[in-house]
Amino acid sequence: MVTLLTGISQLATAPGTGARRGAEMGVLDIIEDAAIAIEGERIAWVGPRRAWTGTAAEERDLGGRAVVPGLVDPHTHVVWAGDRLADFEARVSGVPYEQILARGGGIRSTMRHTAAASVVELIELARPRLAALVAGGATTVEIKSGYGFTLEAELASLEAINAFIGHARVQVVPTLLIHVPPGNPAERADYLAMVTQELIPEVASRGLATAVDIFIEREAFSVEDAKVVFGAALAEGLAVKAHADQFHAIGGVECAIAHGALSVDHLEASTPGQIAALGAAPTVATILPGVTLHLGLPAAPARALIAAGAAVAVGTDCNPGSSPLFSPQLAVALAVRLNGLTPAEALTAGTANAAAALGLADRGRLAAGQRADLLVLDERDWRTITYTLGASPVVASWIAGRELTA
Amino acid sequence: MVTLLTGISQLATAPGTGARRGAEMGVLDIIEDAAIAIEGERIAWVGPRRAWTGTAAEERDLGGRAVVPGLVDPHTHVVWAGDRLADFEARVSGVPYEQILARGGGIRSTMRHTAAASVVELIELARPRLAALVAGGATTVEIKSGYGFTLEAELASLEAINAFIGHARVQVVPTLLIHVPPGNPAERADYLAMVTQELIPEVASRGLATAVDIFIEREAFSVEDAKVVFGAALAEGLAVKAHADQFHAIGGVECAIAHGALSVDHLEASTPGQIAALGAAPTVATILPGVTLHLGLPAAPARALIAAGAAVAVGTDCNPGSSPLFSPQLAVALAVRLNGLTPAEALTAGTANAAAALGLADRGRLAAGQRADLLVLDERDWRTITYTLGASPVVASWIAGRELTA
Repeated sequence: MVTLLTGISQLATAPGTGARRGAEMGVLDIIEDAAIAIEGERIAWVGPRRAWTGTAAEERDLGGRAVVPGLVDPHTHVVWAGDRLADFEARVSGVPYEQILARGGGIRSTMRHTAAASVVELIELARPRLAALVAGGATTVEIKSGYGFTLEAELASLEAINAFIGHARVQVVPTLLIHVPPGNPAERADYLAMVTQELIPEVASRGLATAVDIFIEREAFSVEDAKVVFGAALAEGLAVKAHADQFHAIGGVECAIAHGALSVDHLEASTPGQIAALGAAPTVATILPGVTLHLGLPAAPARALIAAGAAVAVGTDCNPGSSPLFSPQLAVALAVRLNGLTPAEALTAGTANAAAALGLADRGRLAAGQRADLLVLDERDWRTITYTLGASPVVASWIAGRELTA
Repeated sequence: MVTLLTGISQLATAPGTGARRGAEMGVLDIIEDAAIAIEGERIAWVGPRRAWTGTAAEERDLGGRAVVPGLVDPHTHVVWAGDRLADFEARVSGVPYEQILARGGGIRSTMRHTAAASVVELIELARPRLAALVAGGATTVEIKSGYGFTLEAELASLEAINAFIGHARVQVVPTLLIHVPPGNPAERADYLAMVTQELIPEVASRGLATAVDIFIEREAFSVEDAKVVFGAALAEGLAVKAHADQFHAIGGVECAIAHGALSVDHLEASTPGQIAALGAAPTVATILPGVTLHLGLPAAPARALIAAGAAVAVGTDCNPGSSPLFSPQLAVALAVRLNGLTPAEALTAGTANAAAALGLADRGRLAAGQRADLLVLDERDWRTITYTLGASPVVASWIAGRELTA
């Protein structure tokens, strides 16, 4: 049974297949007065309304609005307990991070609260955050563990994440994040042994995640640690990715590329060497402008990445400490303001390239055979999705061929 | 008949009366487990729940949520026609503003579209923008004319703005903005004569605005022009205010202060002289962080203003060219990130001081006698309103004693 969507003033989508690289990112297929035929969960046909010659059981007139692919948020941490409001107030009032840590704040406070929460509590806490991301245009959301730390708490976080699969209409992609090393350096070897010999095999055997991510940074895990974790993940058939070059370029990008990572995320501290490497590798370069806005730190060098030929994606990094950003639409809009992307590049970054950052080829475009994940916007012009600040220009979301209802 | 609001985990409000200046801005009254008694449109009593000894006809349990005063947006231009999406794309793609103007873009395109629209069309275009501001926490919204240019078109814009008074639950405050001078300098004297001899008297006699604003800038109106316009406004009993120091400090702040302006708005280019003047004058200093984010220009020196003892307010500046920001909550949250306000200062800037920027003493606080304009937040902690990015933490708005229903 075919449903034909009409009344589409303008349809905009990345063309082609796979990640869009370099100058390709700025090239969109734009169809005026378009129609989209949906059959089941998939798009059967896309083209100018007048070119449709098929038969539709139902026709839905969208009233002269622009349509774009559903946004893919490739980097979130929405499963957490506790809050970081006191930390936020202290930081913006000039309290040094060391003092915030000393008074029990910082990421370890989120870890304590998350480890103390039940799976049911974690689900209830994450539900409104996921709903906010959907209201902001997400049709697929990656969610990472990483605040659990222990074997048990990491598995609980992943169980909470997996509870949304099949129960929320938005598509959830779970990732195991190896996030924070033990405070005592002497415990690091034992911790990594637990991760590689127990946690990763258990996650793989239970199918709790499709990828393993690791935070490679001076204050977090080293490149040597990452090699061990990547090796264990790949041996279990899991994909790999990394938080890299957030504060220091210590080799995380190079290590992730060498291990065939789907994406490296952050890149605020990347230098020409890392940028050139990403221009030549299939690994997607994911930028996170919410962190730039929230912490007032430098923006990832997206223009240089695109000039080098990289495939740039954008995500919210939704988390309580460094990016309380609950809208993929605003992430795309911030990528224009803070990272210098053009509207077309930003749409590509939030759709086709964000899907590629998750290893997904079946979404992120409006084309026959793709999942019917799409957004109906509040204007006749698709650029509104990259322009509007502080309100969602998304008036309706379709996920897997069905309109989302509140 | 008294309605008692209970289940308020935390209530936060600026104390005292009038604008809060300098270090006062960071001082809030915070009441844990609070109650608010509402009688008609006004607040009758505020205090700890246990201290309430009165009689209420009705009790409403807000479920353990934080409550803050309704946000006042003291600077918007939401009545416009046309869009600036092509300009936006061109600008962020590196096209010089002169070329954008040459191809028919820029502010004059908004003026052409606005002048060509009927009052009814202007109302319909502004309605969803106003609704977005309300969803983002506004309970009072100032709206300026200024895209009309001609006598007739300026009056039409003000008629559209006035149509919302009494018809939208949100309180609308209309301002006549003298925005863009004639393109031909030879016509300036005639234009100012029309403004001072026809437009301002007509606006005053019909009660279409309570204040006159003027854009003082090298490319707009001079200080000499402003003196003439301020004189005409004051002679008609209207308040005055100014767009000043946006790009160049050419004396707009000093001139506005000398004329007793309610506020001077923008201040991105203010230097120590203007900052000291604002520290000593009753005129409110209104900052507009949406412009900073959208155009990538310097932020107004809010920390220096507060150090000098100024009363800082914050607004969205919602407009299609320089600040497509549709959320006063996000304006407050951006003032923390981009202007360095603390959460307490930002709440004061968006409530008590924003009301003072409109000359309103009856709102902006939770205190007996004030209008019962308040927001119920999604957390137990009031700081969420200054923290959240990309989603509205406002779960319910009360305006003039009644809960707003969709």
